[in-house]
Amino acid sequence: MIDPQAEDISPIQPLITYFEKLVSLPEAMKKLIIKETTSVVYKKNKFIVSPIDLEDAVYFIVKGAVRGFVKDSGQQITTWISVEDNIVGTFSNDSPFKVEKNDYIQTIEETEVIVIPYQLIEMLYLSFHEMSIIGRKVLKFHYHESKERNFMIRLPTTERRFARLRQTHPHLLSRIPLQHLASYLGVRIETLSRLRSRIGRDSH
Amino acid sequence: MIDPQAEDISPIQPLITYFEKLVSLPEAMKKLIIKETTSVVYKKNKFIVSPIDLEDAVYFIVKGAVRGFVKDSGQQITTWISVEDNIVGTFSNDSPFKVEKNDYIQTIEETEVIVIPYQLIEMLYLSFHEMSIIGRKVLKFHYHESKERNFMIRLPTTERRFARLRQTHPHLLSRIPLQHLASYLGVRIETLSRLRSRIGRDSH
Repeated sequence: MIDPQAEDISPIQPLITYFEKLVSLPEAMKKLIIKETTSVVYKKNKFIVSPIDLEDAVYFIVKGAVRGFVKDSGQQITTWISVEDNIVGTFSNDSPFKVEKNDYIQTIEETEVIVIPYQLIEMLYLSFHEMSIIGRKVLKFHYHESKERNFMIRLPTTERRFARLRQTHPHLLSRIPLQHLASYLGVRIETLSRLRSRIGRDSH
Repeated sequence: MIDPQAEDISPIQPLITYFEKLVSLPEAMKKLIIKETTSVVYKKNKFIVSPIDLEDAVYFIVKGAVRGFVKDSGQQITTWISVEDNIVGTFSNDSPFKVEKNDYIQTIEETEVIVIPYQLIEMLYLSFHEMSIIGRKVLKFHYHESKERNFMIRLPTTERRFARLRQTHPHLLSRIPLQHLASYLGVRIETLSRLRSRIGRDSH
């Protein structure tokens, strides 16, 4: 913590490592990313994104867990849950749909994120073709996640939805509070509580 | 139809035009796309993709309408509906989830598609950085569509789901047969039938 350079670089290294799993990065690109991103820690239950924000960034989760939800006539509908080593954002700054902005991202645990401004992303797209490869691979992963959520929530019974989530995202079951899991699964808390206590045990 | 070159190129032109809205294409890239893609017409209710296929391509819809569905214990769950000027595919050849393949794409109308082999896409990614830009923009659009489906289906009432679909995809309401719309909206055909006849009229 005394070497100033180490202080500059170390908080952003998890993002560099994440990107380098997707494509090898030119030094100039790494330098720009390290210069233009910042590490921020949010306490539990804080809002990273809400409709009143300008929403000018996406967020790499270094440590913690967050949920995305939409407010529908007072009710919160949890549409996704994500944990460390993922990039999250509402990505709605250029949504093709003419609909009001109504996206929230809230921390479920104390969460450390690296803030990646859209301005930086646009700069990287213009200067480094590697960024298009990263963007494509990250979006492909997000598309698969969204497709999976879309299928899971359409399963007709709580048992099937829970079984599907357990098959695709087992790490969430023991970690995410019941009320958020229930909202995400579109089921009543009591129903999920019984299921989780019954099935949850087998998964250990 | 007499000029042989025109015959070669014309069936693929809609795909070239679609790509060129996303990024300007090098001549060599256009030539390769035209050489390695084929135009195919499927009659109504035919399968473009099913789990027994090798699924080695994605499809640009030139004309027509298709639906994606998944079989869940005998039941067909329609998870998306798409029409001309869109690229469709199950994109599950590299799904991050260890789950059985169970994706179907079926034509709702007689549908003309341009078959884009994954092998060509990989070739284009290696040879033309423009392809990464196209891939990113197409995936971004698909992500937004999937995110919208995921939200729409979580709305608690048939009225809200229908209103949301009408707001984001009005063109589907009068065009897509009732049973597919109902499955996509996760509601009973009778319920949707009443709603559509009531609300549908106002939208004209």
